[in-house]
Formats: sequence, structure tokens, C-alpha cells
Amino acid sequence: MENRVSDLFGIKYPLIQAGMVWASGWRLAAAVSNAGGLGLLGAGSMYPDVLREQIRKCKAATDKPFGVNVPILYADIEKHIAIILEEKVPIVFTSAGNPKTWTPVLKDAGIKVVHVVSSSKFAREETTTMVLVPLVKAAVDIPVIAAGGIATGRQMLAAMVLGADGVQIGSRFVASEEASSHTLFKEAVVKAQEGDTHLMMKEVVPVRLLKNKFYEDVKAAEQRCASKEELIQLLGRGRAKKGMFEGNMVEGELEIGQVSASINKIMPAGEIVAEIFNEYLAAKAELKNL
Amino acid sequence: MENRVSDLFGIKYPLIQAGMVWASGWRLAAAVSNAGGLGLLGAGSMYPDVLREQIRKCKAATDKPFGVNVPILYADIEKHIAIILEEKVPIVFTSAGNPKTWTPVLKDAGIKVVHVVSSSKFAREETTTMVLVPLVKAAVDIPVIAAGGIATGRQMLAAMVLGADGVQIGSRFVASEEASSHTLFKEAVVKAQEGDTHLMMKEVVPVRLLKNKFYEDVKAAEQRCASKEELIQLLGRGRAKKGMFEGNMVEGELEIGQVSASINKIMPAGEIVAEIFNEYLAAKAELKNL
Repeated sequence: MENRVSDLFGIKYPLIQAGMVWASGWRLAAAVSNAGGLGLLGAGSMYPDVLREQIRKCKAATDKPFGVNVPILYADIEKHIAIILEEKVPIVFTSAGNPKTWTPVLKDAGIKVVHVVSSSKFAREETTTMVLVPLVKAAVDIPVIAAGGIATGRQMLAAMVLGADGVQIGSRFVASEEASSHTLFKEAVVKAQEGDTHLMMKEVVPVRLLKNKFYEDVKAAEQRCASKEELIQLLGRGRAKKGMFEGNMVEGELEIGQVSASINKIMPAGEIVAEIFNEYLAAKAELKNL
Repeated sequence: MENRVSDLFGIKYPLIQAGMVWASGWRLAAAVSNAGGLGLLGAGSMYPDVLREQIRKCKAATDKPFGVNVPILYADIEKHIAIILEEKVPIVFTSAGNPKTWTPVLKDAGIKVVHVVSSSKFAREETTTMVLVPLVKAAVDIPVIAAGGIATGRQMLAAMVLGADGVQIGSRFVASEEASSHTLFKEAVVKAQEGDTHLMMKEVVPVRLLKNKFYEDVKAAEQRCASKEELIQLLGRGRAKKGMFEGNMVEGELEIGQVSASINKIMPAGEIVAEIFNEYLAAKAELKNL
């Protein structure tokens, strides 16, 4: 499938697997890239030496392009960038912060740079994919990658109809065999129904949580109008790791999209890529009857 | 365009104009029906005698099918239903409440009944169109009409790709010449940018507001954790009428979708219908290149 995004990255399908904390390690990224999509390592949950190791393992596992997602606000951002340059990673997605400082540095090294604009501003405003994609498309001439609410080929086609040149898919790949997420978390994602997630901590760090005891604690704090500081304290350190990586389904933070309601099976990542693209083609063919 | 929704209603395009309070009177509904869509009267802001008058005027202004949107929780619901039966309205959309009591009554009279399931539960959970439509489609065999975030032909096609058989469009028709909304409100809708609306009063009556002084008052109350009762008192009586119908842009309640960010012009409703459908066809034709 030739289009602006697949051409830009040199991949088969304009389908990107999100670089998610505690989920997107080399096994997942390599599996997606080998299947014709673009796999991303999620640097947000990696110490610098872990990131280097993951990049090397990913390179060994695929000869296809892959990338790294780097949250700009990450404390060790300089070290992350240095490693990415040293290891000659071909593609970088920057998120959560202003890309001004690092984009020229990366581009000068010949790296293709994508910036995720569904930043805190948009997250707080909760602009939906249906509304946001046409607005972004109208505002820029560069390729647009849609993210949010996309887990199937039908949703991918809907995003392309709205003006996207490609899609980034997160939650669906959490429910993949290769994701480094804890099995209990993967199983909870598969079981999640409509209404089982909720956008929380909008004033601190907006994040959509799968409902559990930790969610109830945050909700109670928000309902009694806890201060920002109290919320940060409640969040503490290592909550996300505890939930998504260590499988503590009670006290852990479980980040997942509302599209988890339509994810029903843990599958190999390569099969997910193939299934989404086949459904995309089928939905496109069906359109003739609309 | 033949499909399940256009066939069901006997209309040209599966495009429904929402029955919105203080906007959807006979002028708007008749204009949309005359243009090949389905116009709806918004009974939620009408006393029974006003509703009867509006139905009669609508009948006189179009020989095409039209309908009435009836919020089930409306205090005078019995009177509304009686008038609808007496006036032989062909189509009824029920919303905001349990349709169990009235659906059989209406159906026995040969009326086609649609129920709006984007009810308070879903509104509170804020499930997006992208996620909700496939879930609903998977759950039922009856025709599905998508609503939320749809103002253009491209968005209409995206909704159809997701599995909808038709679309209901609200905000776009507020910015129509025939809407009974106040001109100042229509102009504010046209000026609205991304981030200018916010979903408020989730615990009382979830509604997306255009930001103004009233919105700031609600926000301040919510931030100091005001009780449900305080919020209801702040809302008071006649807030929506004051804003959307009387044009008090400071103290009035201004309900509008986030898709207002992509609405840039007040147009005749018939031209809106034609423009959306033409863009729908053009987007479909373009798909061949995707």
C-alpha cells in the first residue's frame, strides 16, 4: 500500500504500533515491523541502558525499519537522544513536551521525526479523533497520523476517510503476545467493556484508567477536591509499573484506551497487523455499496 | 441513495437533522426534509400547544417525511405523545429516558420510532463515536444512526465506514439560517475554535458548553466541589433559553458540540444538506486512492 506515511518510513502498511510504557519492548516492535507495520519502542519506561539494550535486540530481530517513542519531558532525555544517535535509530516519535529543541538535532542525523500533538492540551480538552483529525489535516500539509479509538481495520479506514495518512494503534497491541505488559493486565484489557475506563487526573497528568481500586482512590480524591499535590502524592512513584508490568491489578495504575471495549483476544502482534489490514481492505471494498 | 435508513424513513439521504432545544423549529425541519434529509422538531423546549403549532406549520411547509424528537423525561410527555398521535406525525425520535412505555404506543399507531441510546450513561462515560458505533453495530441488527462529531460529508462517510446506516447532525444545523437559535449564538458557534467547548455537569445533566461566563461559574462551582443541589440551583430555570434562544451570551447556557470548531459559516439548511452529501460522494470517490 503506497501512501505518504508508508513511503516516508519505507514500510508496507501505514500502521504504527504506539511506543507505550511497560508494553512496547523489542519483541513487540520487531514483530510489528516484521509484519509490515512500524514498531516503536516505548522509551518512557526505560532507563538509558535499558533503551540501548532494547534497540540492539530490536535491530537483531528485524531488518525492517523501527522507531523509538521518546517523551520529551523525560528526565534523562539527553541520554536517550545520545543513545538514539549512537545506535542510528532510523525513526523517532517525540511526545509529551515541546519538540523544538530535539527535532533539529535528530533531523541533522538523518532521522525521520514525528511529533505527537495529542498533547496535554488536547488531552485535557478531550477532542475526539472524529473532530481532531480533520482540524489537524486542514492546518498542515505534512502527513497526518491519527491515534485514539483505533483497533480495527474499519476504524483505520474511518481515520483515513477523515484525512489521516496513517494510524497509530496502542491498546490493541497491549493485548498482543509480544507486549511486555503483565499477562493479568492483558487479560483485563480483553475483558474490558464499554464504560470500564475513565479519563482521570486531568489537572495533573490526564490519563485514561481501567477501573480498579487505584482508580477508585483517585476518583474519591477528585470528588473531595484533593489538591494537585495530594493527587501527585497519591499517584506516587512506580504506580504504572506496578500495574501494567508487575500485574498488581488492585493498587497499580492501568492505562488503556476506551477502545479496549472492542478488543476480545490476545493475539500475536503480526497477526494483529495482518487482521487489521485485511479488514481495512474488506471495509474499503464494501464501501462501494454505501 | 438507497440504504436501510433512507428506505425506512422514505427519504433521499440517510442524514437526519437533530431535534435540538431552541434550534429545531418547523423552519429548520421543513428545510432539511425538503432538501432530502430528515428534519426533526425538538419538542424538548416546546410547551404542548407550541409543539402542535410547530407540527402543523411543518406539515404545511413540506410534503416530505419529518419527525419529532421527544425527551422521555419531559414533564408533559403524555400531552406531547397525544399531540403526536393526533397530528399523525410519521416519525418519532425518543431520547433522554427509558423508551419502554411509549415505543409500543407509538408503533401501534404506525409511527416509526428511533431511540437515542447516547443516553446519560454514555454521555457520562464519554464514549466517542469512533468507539461507540462499532460496539452498537455489533450488538444489534436494527439500523444504526451515528451522532456526535459529524458536521461534514467526510465525517458522515467515516461514520458509515464504522458501521452506521445513517447519521444525525446537530451543531452544523444550529449554524443554519432556518434554526430558531439566536443570531448571536449562531455567530458564536461559527467562531468557536478547538478547545472552546467543554463537557460539564457530568453528575447532574452532562452537557457540552461553549465557554462563557456561565460556563466559568459552573467550572468554579465544580472546582470547589459544589453539591449536586448547588449545581442545580446555579443552573436555575430558563438558562438554556436565555442563552441559545434569547442570545444572552454572558449568563446563558450555550449547548454545542466540539465539532463546532470545524463549522465556519451560517448557511441555508438545504445547502448544508447538499454540501454534506456532495462531500460524502467526493470522499467516497477519493477512497479508491487510499
